[in-house]
Amino acid sequence: MPFVHCLRVRFHECDPQGVVFNAHYFAYFDVALTEMWREAFGSYGEVVDSGTDVVVAEASATFRAPARFDDELDVTLGIDRLGTTSMTMATLIGRDGELLVEGRMVHVFVDTATMAKRPIPDWLRTGLEAYASSS
Amino acid sequence: MPFVHCLRVRFHECDPQGVVFNAHYFAYFDVALTEMWREAFGSYGEVVDSGTDVVVAEASATFRAPARFDDELDVTLGIDRLGTTSMTMATLIGRDGELLVEGRMVHVFVDTATMAKRPIPDWLRTGLEAYASSS
Amino acid sequence: MPFVHCLRVRFHECDPQGVVFNAHYFAYFDVALTEMWREAFGSYGEVVDSGTDVVVAEASATFRAPARFDDELDVTLGIDRLGTTSMTMATLIGRDGELLVEGRMVHVFVDTATMAKRPIPDWLRTGLEAYASSS
Amino acid sequence: MPFVHCLRVRFHECDPQGVVFNAHYFAYFDVALTEMWREAFGSYGEVVDSGTDVVVAEASATFRAPARFDDELDVTLGIDRLGTTSMTMATLIGRDGELLVEGRMVHVFVDTATMAKRPIPDWLRTGLEAYASSS
Repeated sequence: MPFVHCLRVRFHECDPQGVVFNAHYFAYFDVALTEMWREAFGSYGEVVDSGTDVVVAEASATFRAPARFDDELDVTLGIDRLGTTSMTMATLIGRDGELLVEGRMVHVFVDTATMAKRPIPDWLRTGLEAYASSS
Repeated sequence: MPFVHCLRVRFHECDPQGVVFNAHYFAYFDVALTEMWREAFGSYGEVVDSGTDVVVAEASATFRAPARFDDELDVTLGIDRLGTTSMTMATLIGRDGELLVEGRMVHVFVDTATMAKRPIPDWLRTGLEAYASSS
Repeated sequence: MPFVHCLRVRFHECDPQGVVFNAHYFAYFDVALTEMWREAFGSYGEVVDSGTDVVVAEASATFRAPARFDDELDVTLGIDRLGTTSMTMATLIGRDGELLVEGRMVHVFVDTATMAKRPIPDWLRTGLEAYASSS
Repeated sequence: MPFVHCLRVRFHECDPQGVVFNAHYFAYFDVALTEMWREAFGSYGEVVDSGTDVVVAEASATFRAPARFDDELDVTLGIDRLGTTSMTMATLIGRDGELLVEGRMVHVFVDTATMAKRPIPDWLRTGLEAYASSS
């Protein structure tokens, strides 16, 4: 089942058009991912301390409607695919049931010592399977 | 011919992994676009004052290698397509000839008064054609 | 009684030193102020819609110890002085009872139409008195 | 003689009030400091590689007039005092000769290995003396 994190738009994340600046939506996805790590594994720090880190390989988003200052947003992360060394997530941002942003992120798992690609450890894979988009 | 803007990575754009946080690359594309407007039309402000603005409809990027603090980056914007109401750009970020990030952005042209979609005015279209990826 | 807002440090707010970049603490004060407006008046938007806005005239901070990624911080705002047209707040950031940052902000009240300085309306003054540092 | 760095306000640094969000001015001071390190010592990285780093102990600013999108700003850093382990800078931001922001920053020198306070090395002190506010 996808993971949902709720956050509120901050004033300084909005630009002179009065809406959230596009790059900040990608930061929102990252904030939600931190909370997903927390729910699944205690914290992102514990994952890193275990010797595995993630780096962003791809990020994309389609912006359907703008979010504004003080809006409460639901950021949804569903795992579409767990490969050998990478994870593909479908990402959504909604407000009161209205879809605002629809995206996709690919993270690659790396060894914290070398930053080289590494297979997803089994315990991480098991924990992440809970967030499959289709489950 | 694509437009190239050179900028330097700021310290606070880098995260505890020591590399540019992914969302900031999208901000770099926006900074470069501002400079493209300047070269083509005097400034982004003059475009807006004329009654036409742009909003981001889609943004995506593939991250091949990380940029780091104090790196000098070349941000390249080439226009792949000028539709009736939208512009699709191929975006690149390089460092000393090495390709770091490859992306794509779609902007939609809107009326500044209503923020509704509007056809690209002829003078804007003519100015933008200079930046075609293929020219 | 001072207002307290709890927030969690985001990954991208930390720099390659592994700590919150100094400028972000000022953003945290602003985030807390938004929540103070919400508690006191419904929202910042309602204050602005009433015809009164605030602009920052002064901001300062002393950094005693760094905050790090994923820390839960208490941001405290206490009003030290409500002048005719300005408000002076004592600002604090703590983590588990440890004081990390101690600051001060001065906001000036302005008319939303003209952005010119204006006296604090009585209803705002009354609402803000609840957050006096000394009460 | 104070160090001056010129930069241009980016769109996403401006908020829905149409002006630079207050926290970003502190980031501008940091960007200028990076350029001062470059002029004086080759780069900030070379200073850090030598075993000495700096952390921000205090930062303050008085905002006299707002900067806006696309403004070209002069960020001026003058060293007011070089103590045993700290440096106090007077910071200014101007636009076309108009003073917009007036501030002050205190940096403490630390050992990169321990992050403990350390005396300013002689070669750094000599290099920094060139930027005395009064010279």
